[in-house]
Amino acid sequence: MSRVAYVNGRYMPHREAAVHVEDRGYQFADGCYEVVAIADGKFIDEGLHLQRLHRSLDALEIVAPMSDAALRTVMREVVRRNAVREGFIYLQVTRGAAPRDFAFPSGVRPSLVMTARRRTLTDPRLAAEGIKVITIPDLRWARPDIKSVSLLPNALGKERAKRAGAYEAWQIDRDGNVTEGTSSNAWIVTAEGDVVTHQADTAILNGVTRLGLIRVIAAAGLRLVERKFSLDEAKSAREALLTSSTNFVLPIVRIDDTAIGDGRPGPLARKLIALYQSYAASGGQDHD
Amino acid sequence: MSRVAYVNGRYMPHREAAVHVEDRGYQFADGCYEVVAIADGKFIDEGLHLQRLHRSLDALEIVAPMSDAALRTVMREVVRRNAVREGFIYLQVTRGAAPRDFAFPSGVRPSLVMTARRRTLTDPRLAAEGIKVITIPDLRWARPDIKSVSLLPNALGKERAKRAGAYEAWQIDRDGNVTEGTSSNAWIVTAEGDVVTHQADTAILNGVTRLGLIRVIAAAGLRLVERKFSLDEAKSAREALLTSSTNFVLPIVRIDDTAIGDGRPGPLARKLIALYQSYAASGGQDHD
Repeated sequence: MSRVAYVNGRYMPHREAAVHVEDRGYQFADGCYEVVAIADGKFIDEGLHLQRLHRSLDALEIVAPMSDAALRTVMREVVRRNAVREGFIYLQVTRGAAPRDFAFPSGVRPSLVMTARRRTLTDPRLAAEGIKVITIPDLRWARPDIKSVSLLPNALGKERAKRAGAYEAWQIDRDGNVTEGTSSNAWIVTAEGDVVTHQADTAILNGVTRLGLIRVIAAAGLRLVERKFSLDEAKSAREALLTSSTNFVLPIVRIDDTAIGDGRPGPLARKLIALYQSYAASGGQDHD
Repeated sequence: MSRVAYVNGRYMPHREAAVHVEDRGYQFADGCYEVVAIADGKFIDEGLHLQRLHRSLDALEIVAPMSDAALRTVMREVVRRNAVREGFIYLQVTRGAAPRDFAFPSGVRPSLVMTARRRTLTDPRLAAEGIKVITIPDLRWARPDIKSVSLLPNALGKERAKRAGAYEAWQIDRDGNVTEGTSSNAWIVTAEGDVVTHQADTAILNGVTRLGLIRVIAAAGLRLVERKFSLDEAKSAREALLTSSTNFVLPIVRIDDTAIGDGRPGPLARKLIALYQSYAASGGQDHD
């Protein structure tokens, strides 16, 4: 079956899905996006994703291309046409196409693109063996809390990780603290068993899986602390993990050249992976 | 006459010029660009623009889409088909289209897009009356010296300027220094008559018009100093100006609520505007 994309009101073969060269997403990175995981045909935390989409649109002063009800309908149609039972849907909204000028154009309709892809979420091998992360300076602009397509430093960082044989790159701010990965949030477990992740301020993207795992942690009676943590603290942590919409929860067994714990996925990581999978299987908070 | 664009090997009506939704320029701002001014049918400093394009491509590890000779040929054809005697050509290169993944795809050809537009360079009214700039925090990523399409903060800043009735926004770093405008370089003239502009390090985009004006300044026997200058120093400067490929040189008569000098374009700005126009009329350094 060939893939189908949605572009500005039309469903079309994926290979023909195109936007104008003067779409501001192409010339100015002037847009935002969401990636929503689909497990067993269900959207995971769709409500939180739409809520965050609105937060991004508001921050960029881009008008929503359609109502949430209409968005949900198109999302379902894209998933149906691509026969995705497990995988994800990618949704991008830009300010629209207009003659190139840095300031906002007037009277332009925002562009809306959706694609969907089948993929196994939580790769069992990665979950069992754990992954390696490298560290890089956080070079991003001052507002990574907006889920914009201004992702060039993230792409460059992920490529560095790949070349180093790692799965992700953790970004380090100028004070030596870990902000987050290039496309995932960063977590550690302290010697006391506290689960720690950077607070949701302007320095990080407040991941929907991050929010889901916070809920899972609370439900399990574990202690969560939202605060900055340094790279040094991370390297001597008992466990480390990452979260993202397309990876769920993955254990980190090595940061740069330092083994974390005994170099194998820790007990808390394994527990949280299992708990998050149950949470996701129920659709997340939407289905509480 | 309808406009013509060049996209990946084809000349096509501008309104039909499109790139794939998975072009990395659209999803990751993973590309770079140049804007080359055209005066009296001549490209201004085309050699410097191509040199800088290669610098950007090298920094991003994107392969050049074609030889410089071929690029020059396509640029001329785009300009010819759009009958541009005065205006500019816009040229964008991205890493290409590939299934969405942050790390670089393999075996993908870079995308090349060119458009051209007729426009009056150095608006006589703006040059005569001077312009106003506002100031904003420099929120950009750590490598604005790469001419990438990662321009979201620049677009947001220019929009703020427009709403404030200003022509440009000067970006202020965390130490209170002026880096540059959202799409122009920033200059001041000191009480001693020195012309000052931020040194070409990673904090600014080394404008081709900046380089041209530096040559013009030297030829005129004026004193140029490349160094940081604070917003306070700028506000009490004798004169202030900006440079960009599509504006050449423009006098600044107001920064935020502070009049610069006597609030009218100063003698040095007027002189530099005239000198740069002569320089541009000859095609710039290419035609020395």
